[in-house]
Amino acid sequence: MTYCVGIKLNAGLVFLSDSRTNAGVDNISTFRKIIVYERPGDRFMVLLAAGNLSIAQSVREILQVEQLKEGDGSEAMTIWNVKSMFDAARVLGNAVRHVYDRDAEALQHAGVEFNVNLIFGGQIRGENMRLFQVYSAGNFIEATMETPYFQVGEYKYGKPVLDRVITPETGLNEAAKCALVSMDSTMKSNLSVGPPLDLVVYEADTFQSDKVVCIDMQNPYFRMLHSSWGQKLREVFDSLEDPQWSDAPTEVPLKVDNARARPIKKITRPDERLI
Amino acid sequence: MTYCVGIKLNAGLVFLSDSRTNAGVDNISTFRKIIVYERPGDRFMVLLAAGNLSIAQSVREILQVEQLKEGDGSEAMTIWNVKSMFDAARVLGNAVRHVYDRDAEALQHAGVEFNVNLIFGGQIRGENMRLFQVYSAGNFIEATMETPYFQVGEYKYGKPVLDRVITPETGLNEAAKCALVSMDSTMKSNLSVGPPLDLVVYEADTFQSDKVVCIDMQNPYFRMLHSSWGQKLREVFDSLEDPQWSDAPTEVPLKVDNARARPIKKITRPDERLI
Repeated sequence: MTYCVGIKLNAGLVFLSDSRTNAGVDNISTFRKIIVYERPGDRFMVLLAAGNLSIAQSVREILQVEQLKEGDGSEAMTIWNVKSMFDAARVLGNAVRHVYDRDAEALQHAGVEFNVNLIFGGQIRGENMRLFQVYSAGNFIEATMETPYFQVGEYKYGKPVLDRVITPETGLNEAAKCALVSMDSTMKSNLSVGPPLDLVVYEADTFQSDKVVCIDMQNPYFRMLHSSWGQKLREVFDSLEDPQWSDAPTEVPLKVDNARARPIKKITRPDERLI
Repeated sequence: MTYCVGIKLNAGLVFLSDSRTNAGVDNISTFRKIIVYERPGDRFMVLLAAGNLSIAQSVREILQVEQLKEGDGSEAMTIWNVKSMFDAARVLGNAVRHVYDRDAEALQHAGVEFNVNLIFGGQIRGENMRLFQVYSAGNFIEATMETPYFQVGEYKYGKPVLDRVITPETGLNEAAKCALVSMDSTMKSNLSVGPPLDLVVYEADTFQSDKVVCIDMQNPYFRMLHSSWGQKLREVFDSLEDPQWSDAPTEVPLKVDNARARPIKKITRPDERLI
C-alpha cells in the first residue's frame, strides 16, 4: 500500500508521501514514491504515485521522454516544454496510456489489475499553480477551491484531519503539519504505510524549492508531532462529558422524549418477532 | 454501508450501530441494525449486522427458530436454551449457513456476493460476558483482553479513537462516549453511514439492561459531542508547533543530518534519470 497527499493552497503546494511497498505482508520494501521536476525560474512539478510499483516506475521513466503530438503540426509537447500544467498533465496521462498499451494485457494474464494513481502538481511560469489527480486510464481531475487536496492509496485514516484543517487560506507550514498528522494517523492503523516520509513544500511563484526533506522515525519534529498529537487527543477526549443515563439534570441529556427516535424493541421470548 | 461497533470491558458491554442502508447513493433508507435478546435474570444478548440487508434480516428471522443438534442425542440448542455464549454464537453461525444454503446460489446468479458481518455479544447466567464477530461463512472469532472490540462495516474512519482509548479497564460510560465519537468521525466522512444511532450499554452480571437509547441528530448529548470534539481537535492541532525550515534553533528541527534519510534527488533536465 501507499499513502500520498498533495495540497494546493493560495500560498503554495504541499506534497507528502510514505515509502513502503509490499508484495504481501511478508515482503516489505522501501521505495520512494515522489519525484520533483525542477527548472529553476521556469517550472516546478511534483509527481506522487500509488498503485502497482512497476507501473508507477515505468510511467516515471517514460514521462522523461514522453511526447504528445497534436494533429496541427505544432511542436511535440513534453513536460519540459509545455506552457501549462494542464498540458503537462495530458503528457503524463499519455505516458500512463503508453504503459497500459505495453503491459496491461500481460498483467491481465497474470491476474494483476492495471492500477496506478497519481498526484501531479506544480507551476509553470506564465500561469498559476495547479494540482491534478491522474487515474489508471490517463484521465485526470483538477483540485479546486472547494476541494484543495488529493489523496491516493490508503486515504481513509488520514482524511478527517485534512477535512477539518485544510482550506485554500491555510498557511504552508500549517498545511505541512496537517499532512504529517494525517500520515501519522495512517501509519498507526495501516502497517503497509511506512517511513521514511518525503515532504516537499513549494512557495507560489518561486519556480524552485529547497524545502525538500526526508523524515525518518528519528526525526525530532515528527517524533514531537506523533507523541503530542496522541497525548492531546486523549486529553480532549477525557475533557468531554460522559453520557448520563440517570434523570439527574444535565445540559446535555442522552435520553430525551422523541417520537422519531424510539429505542429498539427487545426480543424476550422464542416466539417473538421484531415486526 | 453500515458502521457497528461492539466493545467488551471488565465493567460490561457497549454496542452502537448506525441505521442507514443504501442501494446506490440514490436510494437511502433507514433500517435498524441492532437487536436485543433479553430474558431478565437469565440471559442478555445483542446482535449487530452489516452487509447485505436481506441476508441480515433473514439471519435474524431464522435465529429465533434455529436449532443446532449435536450427534449425541442431547437436546437441540437454540439461543434461548444454550448454556454458553460460545454455543449461542454457534447457533448464530448455523443460522448464517442456513441462509447461505437458501440464497447464495441465486444471489451469485445476480452477481451479488453473499456478504454479512455480525457482532454478537452478551452474557448467560453461569459464565462471563463474551463478544464475537461472526463472518459470512458462519465461522467466528472472540474478543480478548488485547483486542476488546469489534467493528463491522465502514470501520476505518472510526478506528483510531477506539485504539487510543479502549482497554478492558475503560469505564462503561467512557466507552459509550468513545463509540459515539468513533461513529461521529465515520458519519463525517462516509455519507452511507447515518442516523439515527442505536446505543445499548450492558452492566456485567445484570442479565438485563434499560440503557437502550436511540440517538438522532437533535439529541443534546450527541450534538455536544459532535461540536466539542471538532472544535477541540482543531485547538489541539493549532497548539502543535509548525515545522521550521530555517536553521533557527528549535528543540524539534525538521531538517537533520541523517545519512539514512537523504532527501530525494530532483530531476532538472529531460535527459536525467533518478537512478
